[in-house]
Amino acid sequence: MACTISTSPHFPCVDSILKQIPLFSGVSDALVAQFHDAAHVRAERKGKVLFIQGDQAKWFYVVVHGWVKLFRETIDGAEAIIDICTHGHMFGEHALFEDEVHGCSAQLVEDAQLVMLPISMLKNTIAENSQLALNMLTGMSRHRSKQAQEIEHLSLKNAPQRIGCFLLRLCPDDAGERATVHLPYDKTLVAARLGMKPETFSRALARLKGESLIAIQGASVTICNVDALVRYTCDHCSSTFPCEDLTS
Amino acid sequence: MACTISTSPHFPCVDSILKQIPLFSGVSDALVAQFHDAAHVRAERKGKVLFIQGDQAKWFYVVVHGWVKLFRETIDGAEAIIDICTHGHMFGEHALFEDEVHGCSAQLVEDAQLVMLPISMLKNTIAENSQLALNMLTGMSRHRSKQAQEIEHLSLKNAPQRIGCFLLRLCPDDAGERATVHLPYDKTLVAARLGMKPETFSRALARLKGESLIAIQGASVTICNVDALVRYTCDHCSSTFPCEDLTS
Repeated sequence: MACTISTSPHFPCVDSILKQIPLFSGVSDALVAQFHDAAHVRAERKGKVLFIQGDQAKWFYVVVHGWVKLFRETIDGAEAIIDICTHGHMFGEHALFEDEVHGCSAQLVEDAQLVMLPISMLKNTIAENSQLALNMLTGMSRHRSKQAQEIEHLSLKNAPQRIGCFLLRLCPDDAGERATVHLPYDKTLVAARLGMKPETFSRALARLKGESLIAIQGASVTICNVDALVRYTCDHCSSTFPCEDLTS
Repeated sequence: MACTISTSPHFPCVDSILKQIPLFSGVSDALVAQFHDAAHVRAERKGKVLFIQGDQAKWFYVVVHGWVKLFRETIDGAEAIIDICTHGHMFGEHALFEDEVHGCSAQLVEDAQLVMLPISMLKNTIAENSQLALNMLTGMSRHRSKQAQEIEHLSLKNAPQRIGCFLLRLCPDDAGERATVHLPYDKTLVAARLGMKPETFSRALARLKGESLIAIQGASVTICNVDALVRYTCDHCSSTFPCEDLTS
């Protein structure tokens, strides 16, 4: 749904997106309306920093469209990407349980439109509304499983296998023997998301090409034989293809 | 507190440990007593498998003493260690939010005594008791931060730095210039916990010794110069020493 930026107090896109996110699943319309009334909508440019690790948290966010990276920066300036969020993803809400301080930084990697919601309202409502608390627990638990699988991948899979996994998760469910997928963001960011240096990423791509598993044209990657890539990748994983555990 | 195994319905160690764990913080004595009455206490030997990834979950666990590893096994038989739990740690409860199926396997790596509590009681109580739900959310959020830092370490730190981090977290708060720490479990398990093959672990230890940062005698490791190891390790991290983010 296209959504224009407005300073008016009513945004049709906010209604639509709040009702879609798992946090508000099964929650009364009156409660969703309360969050809607307190929401701000912002359109921001690529590069905009929303918050820095250690910042006091006043807002949590839902992405309407665009891409936002969540990352932690080391003292010597390297960056570890914790997550990359897009349409319908919620982030920043965990600060609620960390003395209202953000545990990571958030920056736009593409132009994006965001809904900002007050952390204080979430805090007060969770204590009173068990459905909201359960939704939040379910969401956090899913995220925990996803992180557990990432730890598994970083521990056990080599770089070409991690790329294979990333590509297979972009495959449509009805992919046949051969499938073409589009990288959702630029290659440097894909590399960082997979915990690789750009040169490791390039070498790993070359290896997948060398083994005739993929062909690359710009941001499009053709998986030459889906079954072969599944064997190459998923035999080294605790999940089987198609994978439900980990979204990109 | 020493705890004898008993088949009687009252275990003093259960009272004591349930009151210690964050899940029951600020919760009424009556509710803790209800969980106590439904608890089983088990003493198990090293090697015992408590549950397998994919098993239906009836119980969650609290460790009284000993060590339990949580892991995921890949199709080709490799093992990724997700966590290693000891005194006061709770595990298995996340199955509640995953259709009551365990998302990882659990096996004793040392003899251990465990309290088993019914998942169904947790499920029913969380929906009614907001304090319990909030405690669970806080615990899950801490775990999520810990996993985010592990993803950062696996992405950005080399093997000697990851070992340095593990050793520094074993240091007492009042460690001076030089400190001796004891590995809490065997070296193969430390390697796996840090996402390394045993040979990588040995090479990384040799490098730390070669740079005169540590000296090793059996399961004891002397950090020859704490400040130097902090510079070597923590400059490549988003947290500073002493580190509060990640417990071993």
